[in-house]
Amino acid sequence: MMRVAVLGTGLIGTSVALALRERGASVWLADADQEAARLAAHLGAGELLPEDAGPASWVPADVAVIAVPPSAVADTLAAAQARALAACYTDVASVKQLPVEQARARGCDMASYVPGHPLAGREKHGPAAARADLFLGRTWALCPEPETSEQAVAAVTDLAAGCGAVPLRIAAAAHDRWVALVSHAPHLVAAAMAARLESAPPQALDLAGQGLRDVTRIAAGDIALWTQILAANAGPVAEVLAAVAADLAEAARMLADGDPKSVATLLDQGQAGVARIPGKHGGEPREFTVVQVVIPDQPGELTRLFDAAGQAGVNIEDVRIEHSPGLPVGVAELSVRPAEAGPLLDALEAGGWPVRR
Amino acid sequence: MMRVAVLGTGLIGTSVALALRERGASVWLADADQEAARLAAHLGAGELLPEDAGPASWVPADVAVIAVPPSAVADTLAAAQARALAACYTDVASVKQLPVEQARARGCDMASYVPGHPLAGREKHGPAAARADLFLGRTWALCPEPETSEQAVAAVTDLAAGCGAVPLRIAAAAHDRWVALVSHAPHLVAAAMAARLESAPPQALDLAGQGLRDVTRIAAGDIALWTQILAANAGPVAEVLAAVAADLAEAARMLADGDPKSVATLLDQGQAGVARIPGKHGGEPREFTVVQVVIPDQPGELTRLFDAAGQAGVNIEDVRIEHSPGLPVGVAELSVRPAEAGPLLDALEAGGWPVRR
Repeated sequence: MMRVAVLGTGLIGTSVALALRERGASVWLADADQEAARLAAHLGAGELLPEDAGPASWVPADVAVIAVPPSAVADTLAAAQARALAACYTDVASVKQLPVEQARARGCDMASYVPGHPLAGREKHGPAAARADLFLGRTWALCPEPETSEQAVAAVTDLAAGCGAVPLRIAAAAHDRWVALVSHAPHLVAAAMAARLESAPPQALDLAGQGLRDVTRIAAGDIALWTQILAANAGPVAEVLAAVAADLAEAARMLADGDPKSVATLLDQGQAGVARIPGKHGGEPREFTVVQVVIPDQPGELTRLFDAAGQAGVNIEDVRIEHSPGLPVGVAELSVRPAEAGPLLDALEAGGWPVRR
Repeated sequence: MMRVAVLGTGLIGTSVALALRERGASVWLADADQEAARLAAHLGAGELLPEDAGPASWVPADVAVIAVPPSAVADTLAAAQARALAACYTDVASVKQLPVEQARARGCDMASYVPGHPLAGREKHGPAAARADLFLGRTWALCPEPETSEQAVAAVTDLAAGCGAVPLRIAAAAHDRWVALVSHAPHLVAAAMAARLESAPPQALDLAGQGLRDVTRIAAGDIALWTQILAANAGPVAEVLAAVAADLAEAARMLADGDPKSVATLLDQGQAGVARIPGKHGGEPREFTVVQVVIPDQPGELTRLFDAAGQAGVNIEDVRIEHSPGLPVGVAELSVRPAEAGPLLDALEAGGWPVRR
């Protein structure tokens, strides 16, 4: 049975604690904000770490999970190692080179420290937003340094897998470079597009469709945390942003000059880039067929619909519901494997829904 | 009973035809590609327009809908007016100033022409992708010129409403300016971000999450059509892109210089911009509570779940299913009104799903 100390009971720390508790681990909780730690304990995430836990009175945990903002990782690690809180240590910060450099500069024991980053999050924060299933199927990056012991890597790999995540070993520099590309830069790109809407008249926003909503959604995230993340990964993020800015500035120039050729090139490259993102099932994207059904916006309608699908033995892989402003109906888009589209259409027709083949 | 001629039986034209047929309209179809017109007719969109339809042999339709690419609108309008095909005419192009200028230059009758643009589309194209419900609840912009007769505006307004859309009267210049902001520029911004992924190693894409998927999704659209749309609205699009490019270049510079302040400002503006996009129900966004449930990825599970919700009288406003790569479970996120979250949690718990309160 794993024994784990969680230092920092925000969204990520508390979610780790909840996930490990469901697997039978013993978990101790601490946070600079004692109220946050107490709330996490009340949520069932574990018991409070004794304040005097230290070499004289405490059997070291198997792993201590340091779940604090990037710039606080090294100090928290040093203090935990001074108290011999655990056999090995990991953190969950969204950048990896900064905490590693700071830990080394502070003289931390690097053999027992496995820098880590679970790629999971929510637009909410704090222990009350925590979920035991937050890491289910998500990549959990582990970035051991040359000094890191394999024993420590094995323990933290077990912990990540115990949370339901998929451990991925990657060097800290590569991690920071690629997370800049697939997460940090897209955040600022979404913000820069959304920022243009700030002074637009309501009439302009009446013309907004689903595309704009998708492009800008993540720009609603926590500003203080994102500022720190972006600052801590400034180099790689700046490189991606500069390239995106240059492409957009060039596209603007070409459009203004009446030469749309380079715009077509950028659209081509964008289409090729999108095609490289793995599907939601991981690995090679699977092809689904989408079946549309118009449904009244009232209780019971979706039940009837899923009931009809279930009775036909059809597994609905994804659902997207679009409501129609001002109308008492919506459109449900049901994703199914191509071979199941026919049976689903039959079942829906038999259930009285108008379908288009 | 409305009599309508649809000139151009691609995705939009055929969808207009199908929508109006469901309302009992008589529809005639024509397309430069006769196969496309025949396919639309086979789909139930109407009958083929007689090739010799003209002043001598044809009773003018109430409205002719010109559903061709932006640069072909004026020629199609001139030819249709020469044959007296209809009492009034509208088009569906995503830009409005270009076809209006070209129609005027070509000497078209501007009194009977109501420039229009339904804000609806799909990532697929052609008559086979058409849907009668494509316009349900969508804004349909109408951009009459000073010469346009009110009678023509009234007829086209009826047609848009008959397709289930919400007509919005707006000047062509304002339309083009704001569609550049909320649709055309976001398309290129998504493409520019996605283009950065083209040469990334697979390891980088293993780190991709939902945020990247949302930001880049629309970049998968039809390149030839989008190139034409962007070229036809080059000025307003270039203005937005130049501003986004400047903000991103500035953010890149500030990050590289170790000054993250301006990045925080951009994040603030982005958050304010996102908040201005109307909710999916239109008008003021409604607040929903999201309830998460872990579900096995097999037939019948969603049925059981919706059944439990329906029996509790809870109306599920939206569903989002996240599958876990490599695991036989997924997480369903159910959006309900705040007052219904408690009853839903009760119902799910009674049904045997583990819930977190």
